[in-house]
Amino acid sequence: MGWELWSRQLDEEELVVNGEYDEHSSSSSSRAAGMNGIGHTKLVDPLEDPLPGVGTYEDFNTIDWVREKSKDRDRHREITNKSRESTVALLHSVSDAFSGWLLMLLVGLMAGALAGGIDIAAHWMTDLKEGVCLNGFWFNHEHCCWTSNETTFKERDRCPQWKSWAELIAGTSEGPFAYILNYLMYIIWALLFSFLAVTLVRAFAPYACGSGIPEIKTILSGFIIRGYLGKWTLIIKTITLVLAVSSGLSLGKEGPLVHVACCCANILCHLFTKYRKNEAKRREVLSAAAAVGVSVAFGAPIGGVLFSLEEVSYYFPLKTLWRSFFAALVAAFTLRSINPFGNSRLVLFYVEFHAPWHLVELAPFILLGIFGGLWGALFIKANIAWCRLRKTTRLGHYPVIEVLVVTAATALMAFPNSYTRMSGAELISELFNDCSLLDSSQLCGYKQPANTSDTGLDSLADRPAGEGLYTALWQLALALIFKILITVITFGMKVPSGLFIPSMAVGAIAGRLLGVGMEQLAYYNHDWLIFRGWCSPGADCITPGLYAMVGAAACLGGVTRMTVSLVVIMFELTGGLEYIVPLMAATMTSKWVADAFGREGIYEAHIRLNGYPFLEAKEEFQHSSLAVDVMRPRRGDPALAVLTQDGMTVGEVETLVESTHFSGFPVVVSPESQRLVGFVLRRDLLISIDNARKRQDGIVSASKVVFTEHTPAQPPEAPPQLRLRNIMDLSPFTVTDHTPMDITVDIFRKLGLRQCLVTHNGRLLGIITKKDILKHMAQIANRDPDSILFN
Amino acid sequence: MGWELWSRQLDEEELVVNGEYDEHSSSSSSRAAGMNGIGHTKLVDPLEDPLPGVGTYEDFNTIDWVREKSKDRDRHREITNKSRESTVALLHSVSDAFSGWLLMLLVGLMAGALAGGIDIAAHWMTDLKEGVCLNGFWFNHEHCCWTSNETTFKERDRCPQWKSWAELIAGTSEGPFAYILNYLMYIIWALLFSFLAVTLVRAFAPYACGSGIPEIKTILSGFIIRGYLGKWTLIIKTITLVLAVSSGLSLGKEGPLVHVACCCANILCHLFTKYRKNEAKRREVLSAAAAVGVSVAFGAPIGGVLFSLEEVSYYFPLKTLWRSFFAALVAAFTLRSINPFGNSRLVLFYVEFHAPWHLVELAPFILLGIFGGLWGALFIKANIAWCRLRKTTRLGHYPVIEVLVVTAATALMAFPNSYTRMSGAELISELFNDCSLLDSSQLCGYKQPANTSDTGLDSLADRPAGEGLYTALWQLALALIFKILITVITFGMKVPSGLFIPSMAVGAIAGRLLGVGMEQLAYYNHDWLIFRGWCSPGADCITPGLYAMVGAAACLGGVTRMTVSLVVIMFELTGGLEYIVPLMAATMTSKWVADAFGREGIYEAHIRLNGYPFLEAKEEFQHSSLAVDVMRPRRGDPALAVLTQDGMTVGEVETLVESTHFSGFPVVVSPESQRLVGFVLRRDLLISIDNARKRQDGIVSASKVVFTEHTPAQPPEAPPQLRLRNIMDLSPFTVTDHTPMDITVDIFRKLGLRQCLVTHNGRLLGIITKKDILKHMAQIANRDPDSILFN
Repeated sequence: MGWELWSRQLDEEELVVNGEYDEHSSSSSSRAAGMNGIGHTKLVDPLEDPLPGVGTYEDFNTIDWVREKSKDRDRHREITNKSRESTVALLHSVSDAFSGWLLMLLVGLMAGALAGGIDIAAHWMTDLKEGVCLNGFWFNHEHCCWTSNETTFKERDRCPQWKSWAELIAGTSEGPFAYILNYLMYIIWALLFSFLAVTLVRAFAPYACGSGIPEIKTILSGFIIRGYLGKWTLIIKTITLVLAVSSGLSLGKEGPLVHVACCCANILCHLFTKYRKNEAKRREVLSAAAAVGVSVAFGAPIGGVLFSLEEVSYYFPLKTLWRSFFAALVAAFTLRSINPFGNSRLVLFYVEFHAPWHLVELAPFILLGIFGGLWGALFIKANIAWCRLRKTTRLGHYPVIEVLVVTAATALMAFPNSYTRMSGAELISELFNDCSLLDSSQLCGYKQPANTSDTGLDSLADRPAGEGLYTALWQLALALIFKILITVITFGMKVPSGLFIPSMAVGAIAGRLLGVGMEQLAYYNHDWLIFRGWCSPGADCITPGLYAMVGAAACLGGVTRMTVSLVVIMFELTGGLEYIVPLMAATMTSKWVADAFGREGIYEAHIRLNGYPFLEAKEEFQHSSLAVDVMRPRRGDPALAVLTQDGMTVGEVETLVESTHFSGFPVVVSPESQRLVGFVLRRDLLISIDNARKRQDGIVSASKVVFTEHTPAQPPEAPPQLRLRNIMDLSPFTVTDHTPMDITVDIFRKLGLRQCLVTHNGRLLGIITKKDILKHMAQIANRDPDSILFN
Repeated sequence: MGWELWSRQLDEEELVVNGEYDEHSSSSSSRAAGMNGIGHTKLVDPLEDPLPGVGTYEDFNTIDWVREKSKDRDRHREITNKSRESTVALLHSVSDAFSGWLLMLLVGLMAGALAGGIDIAAHWMTDLKEGVCLNGFWFNHEHCCWTSNETTFKERDRCPQWKSWAELIAGTSEGPFAYILNYLMYIIWALLFSFLAVTLVRAFAPYACGSGIPEIKTILSGFIIRGYLGKWTLIIKTITLVLAVSSGLSLGKEGPLVHVACCCANILCHLFTKYRKNEAKRREVLSAAAAVGVSVAFGAPIGGVLFSLEEVSYYFPLKTLWRSFFAALVAAFTLRSINPFGNSRLVLFYVEFHAPWHLVELAPFILLGIFGGLWGALFIKANIAWCRLRKTTRLGHYPVIEVLVVTAATALMAFPNSYTRMSGAELISELFNDCSLLDSSQLCGYKQPANTSDTGLDSLADRPAGEGLYTALWQLALALIFKILITVITFGMKVPSGLFIPSMAVGAIAGRLLGVGMEQLAYYNHDWLIFRGWCSPGADCITPGLYAMVGAAACLGGVTRMTVSLVVIMFELTGGLEYIVPLMAATMTSKWVADAFGREGIYEAHIRLNGYPFLEAKEEFQHSSLAVDVMRPRRGDPALAVLTQDGMTVGEVETLVESTHFSGFPVVVSPESQRLVGFVLRRDLLISIDNARKRQDGIVSASKVVFTEHTPAQPPEAPPQLRLRNIMDLSPFTVTDHTPMDITVDIFRKLGLRQCLVTHNGRLLGIITKKDILKHMAQIANRDPDSILFN
């Protein structure tokens, strides 16, 4: 998604605005309240109510986690203290404690219901490209043939009620004319869907495009993007997601579902003061919502929680773990009760086989891991190059045309090949499936052994490939090349697009091909040393479906660099521990191979492409620089802009603020001593001075600005002083100039800091912001430090 | 475990000694190396090799996480830089990178093998109490009857080869005499086993007693207890665990298996320099080992990882998550290939039923949750009271007699009741089991419907309780009371003892009783409104085994306050998502109910009982005190003991150090300015001065101690200066006096600090240590602040 759209977006969408902060949520005032002894409750001066706007953040800025969390603890303390006073307050305290759970329940219900709706709509519209149901146009192909009772078990998906477009228009389903007619209708529908999708996104919610996961990662790390999780984004993303998936583009709905779930959570947060008014608390809910998204996408609640923990979350306390799990379960069961797949199954790809695997097979599994890693690394490089091209050349100016051209190309090439014509999810399902004797799929086109009906027992044993299977293999090979190429240019277009399904499809195709290859090798050479003992004739020793599963995990792992969560999601699909070792071997290999080409997963790469201020928690800072090398001002720069605690006038402060662009200023005892007193944010300072000039009598440019606890004496004729201690952070973080940057980075990550002051022997020396650190890291990696766009 | 044993332990066990630190592991020197520009590698002065002992920790002290992690990054950086120079160094770098995985593999293999051995031995010895196998005394009962081919399917556990002691001694198995003989032999064996266990523990490894989880939690949070994870502890714990379990005491082997796995990990760490020499890195491995322990205890690798994450770990980076998962899987598969249960099953309690549950049943499930919570809270209070009694009265002086008395009492009361006579794990297995028609167990003593053989279909339908079941219910009720009482006094004795199995047994009994009650209620009143529709006659609507499972989860949750990990462990037992909602409802209720009586789980309660310095990460610090309220010196105390950077002589420093007991001293520019330069640890200071006096020419008491970068000029006749900048921490953590304690506690937790300096307007004011914080928290909670024993 281009950052150039944001400014427009801001005007259009003002829904997710930080609420004003009421009296008990200001930590500045409570920190300023002074040195209370143990056992005393805090004294809140009613005259010192913070002004509206003080303590809030501007768009595209990073929040201060410490301040937000402290604010929440103050609020909680106040409620707890009050609860001893009256029954109403006690009830308020109890409802406050349980509001988190209630919110989780609502998020689970809403996200589950939306996911169910999306599934049903996408199913129907995907089938609409091929034909229509005579019983009612709102039935999809499968549902249409269920309601029919003329079909036999064998031909479940061919029933007279379902008419292809050729049948409907020309009255025939045979011959080249009908084929071309169907082909044409397929392309027209695809173009219509994708045109609608891209137009809706552009017109109403530019934030609805892409998978959303890079932005959610950034938001969870403390960045503010107003409207990214708003009502309009939710509505438009839900609609366009269905359209984009139905148009047959090589994209999935799994990643965007995470975005949809996060939008739900953000909107529902507005019902609860506790979450509406606190950016840190809201991010806890969003972390849980990310888990909900994956939970409904794959029907894997535990995998979803681990995905949130491993991949997207920044601050994940244990309380959130437990709540995420709850929300993920609620969502999964809501989805199941909606039953969008019509089979009472929770998981997207249900794997029924439980055939054992042999140790020798680890070799092909690791091979699949290597393939997955290579594909992942290549995909990231190619996709980022393409997105950069889109950003820097005229290509980015015509998003609608781009989407239409890609859709047309996809539809043109996809229709003739049955494996690309079906949706990604269906393809993966078919590839994961093991062949039973009744299976009519081409992939199961084995030669039937003569004595099957007699023995019946080894009906699933390895068999020689027949005509049908060879055709299928050719088609799969072509589909593999097609998918690899088209996915690179599809991901990043201005429509909602997930990467999970296309990546898994590539891996599943490769895996199935290798699996069938291994099967045939074992069938014709079962006397080879490696097959001897476990792969005798008539034994069911190789399961091609398992290879597809392993390949899918390897490719998804290569692209996203997920590890535990990926294996757990796959484990939840099969429900048994049998295949954990193959999956783990492939995922591990894939991650190692891909990491050798570049440490970044696709989401981190897109974060960097967009210049978000994201401090990766997984990578250790390896360089040996010190805080003094990173801090501002650099040697030769003008001195650090500081305020003094009682020596400056309102006019001087305003001049200083206006002449700089810093978002905060340290307050020192005096310019000579440079001893640090506190830290004031630009925004708070401006709002307070502005307010004082308007409301407070006698505040003029010559008034002294005072940050001290006690008002200093001044000549009687002087104008009244402006006391600003209540907006000053009395506990700014400091490190010494000798602190190694690895420790500083660790502090920033773990505490979620926005800035940190640097001292030398007790004197203030400079300041390090998150942006400084990111620029420094970019510089070390020989990248352009100015690629970091936001603060 | 009593802390009074530790001093003895120290003399006996010197295995797990911190190695000396070689040159590239000192961060003090590298931090002192000064301000290098970007792109320069650090200059290590060969003359400034740190002395042996500098940078290590004393026993019963807390490590400095920041320093340890920084040291590891320095080491890593050095290896990476060297790897560009030669092939050997490159290979070293690669092997260093993979040593973590190799270590995990070894830990998994070793812990899996040990767990298998313990299972087999405990099985055999438990059966030895009842009789012996004629085919070979080394066969357990089950194995003995397998090798026999005279048994029918129905009487699998009765075979002529297995002789009870009465048969063997008196030649008869009938009549009161034989019963008394068997009773007597049962008690004698139990006493013998428990006597051996307690004697071995006392003689060789006092650390081997208890479950070990409280201590491991403390160790993982950064505390040092030498020998707690040593070779002797491992050997003795493994042996005595088998003895204790076999003696029939009400204890389990699951908790101690975590300790055993951690011992394995700690010992294996000595094979790798990377882990041997770094306390922080070693704790990462120990976190993974905790996961391994649970993985082999229950056959639940994912649950094990989550247990480690939720319950025991302190610092759990994502890298550790992935490695823990790997190790847990290796261990689980090692255990499976040993196959101690003889059924190729990984999980301890395999649950075969998949009967659906009805929404109405949530009410009894929540009831079980309430029971679990009450039992958990009560158990913790009673057990802690009993342990305190043991600690403070003469009871604690006779551990052997205590164990023998409890064993005798347990055996006496357990033998007559078949549900207490069998081991805890067997009991739970039986209670979890659903009744099939062939089941000969008393619990399945239903009246057989007349038409079973005809229909065959509703064979599992609800049936009226028969004679056998009523007897079983009585016995279960007695067993419940017995287990509740005996577990309170058993946990905390001087033998290895886990809590998982006894807690689960209590819950499973209660759950089964409720389940059977519900079943009978539904059978006789299937026209009641709540049963109508789903519980018609002949339907299989209530599954008592499920109630037992839910009850077990609730009780375990109440005692340990585990949440996600508990549900996931239970999920792995059943392998399906069906029962997650009941389990979750019960666990959640249980936690809420138990938390209402006290926020601490049993492990935290024992940590507090023993006075370990453990800063709980789950609890928010709720009080509104400030850093200035907690820091030392308090108002009225003598001023903070500080060193000056160039104003003190060796003699003065020695006097200062000797006259105080602080473990570190801040270094300031001058006593007047109180501007902070750095921080020196007492241990490092003493070692350095001692070494300088011995080795360095001319260092006398009048020599100046210098911490500055440049040597100050001094008169020519003065003795040479002692330069100690290299042992000074140039980046001590500071907070201002106004920092709220909630933020300070957060910093301590997240960064793993040992101490933090407090400043006011740039001047040093005081110091806060972890112990100060814990004392402050104890004071707030109206507990004795001196209950915190260690630093």
